Amino acid sequence: MIINIVAGGPEDLLPCLHDYEDETVTWVGVDRGVFNLLKREIKPTVAFGDFDSVSPEELIYIESQVVELKQYQPEKNETDMELALNWALAQNPDTIRLFGATGGRLDHLFANVQLLIGPLLKGKQENIFLIDRNNCLEVKIPGSYKIPKRAAEKYISFVPVTLNVSNLTLEGFKYPLKNQHISMGSTLCISNELISDYGTFSFSEGILIVIRSHD
Amino acid sequence: MIINIVAGGPEDLLPCLHDYEDETVTWVGVDRGVFNLLKREIKPTVAFGDFDSVSPEELIYIESQVVELKQYQPEKNETDMELALNWALAQNPDTIRLFGATGGRLDHLFANVQLLIGPLLKGKQENIFLIDRNNCLEVKIPGSYKIPKRAAEKYISFVPVTLNVSNLTLEGFKYPLKNQHISMGSTLCISNELISDYGTFSFSEGILIVIRSHD
Repeated sequence: MIINIVAGGPEDLLPCLHDYEDETVTWVGVDRGVFNLLKREIKPTVAFGDFDSVSPEELIYIESQVVELKQYQPEKNETDMELALNWALAQNPDTIRLFGATGGRLDHLFANVQLLIGPLLKGKQENIFLIDRNNCLEVKIPGSYKIPKRAAEKYISFVPVTLNVSNLTLEGFKYPLKNQHISMGSTLCISNELISDYGTFSFSEGILIVIRSHD
Repeated sequence: MIINIVAGGPEDLLPCLHDYEDETVTWVGVDRGVFNLLKREIKPTVAFGDFDSVSPEELIYIESQVVELKQYQPEKNETDMELALNWALAQNPDTIRLFGATGGRLDHLFANVQLLIGPLLKGKQENIFLIDRNNCLEVKIPGSYKIPKRAAEKYISFVPVTLNVSNLTLEGFKYPLKNQHISMGSTLCISNELISDYGTFSFSEGILIVIRSHD
């Protein structure tokens, strides 16, 4: 099962959502993201939010279209995206994709990236991707990973989340690395590219953000 | 002295650069950012980049307008922004502001935030701000800080960079905190607001990203 969560970030940063649609997908809307889904004739199974960013008319329309509406007060400890992601994690899906999670307020973006890091710190390697028109971001714990070339996303970058990332090895990349130590603050692993059909990356300690992007 | 660095991020995310102009400001352009400065009739003192994102005609124009042009090969270990920031830090300014550093590719954004973290890890508390139309981001090491209310930036958010941030205390905020322990992955300190003319925040351990933003 795949769960696609659409939050209310700027609409012009959304990729074509229909490219991420098939019969195994459950759609979840967050606040204004619910409206953006319905505009694309995609009916979310669950909708989360305080809906303070939609008009009363839009809210009536949302209520008539969504299977389950989980409405919260604006003042709570969790962000709307966090409530949606917690719900999604509880369904034990193979993959979770977050859309509408970038652009506009940077605090929202950083909060969303924090949400990807949270489960990893509890030792759970979840397949969660944060996707917008230019980027596909995921967070990785130590291990060895195979990464296929995708023509649409030329660049692959690695950003340390922890103070240190140990023994980073990149194979099949334009700029390969062998057991390199990367410290927070380093930009050494920005804008790399795959030279083969797939590459591998591995590291033994720390947490890495992996970003596939195009201009 | 204040140094304003303008990089080549999407132009529609730039604030009005003339609001950040006075006689103590030195302007620095990075790649396409040089062109965006010249379009606003601001002449950068120094320009950095490989200039692979500007046309040959634009490059000739840039060369005729800029006091010092530092042109690099595209393939190097540092990002263009990093070279510009290192130059700026060597001038020992009171404040450095980075513009054109958000939007588009997330790897560029995260690389730029890494650049703000780098000097702090060497124990240097620099006043570096990453600014776009919706946000003003800075990174802080342990200490006590006074933060004035700004009508234009309603929200103040705190995001942990390190695994732990200890004894976070917020005073003068809508949601105050007293000696709170914040772990990476937490979104507890997103979307706070000042209720007085100024507030204070302090913490004893870790590194925090502080983001002032508006919708």
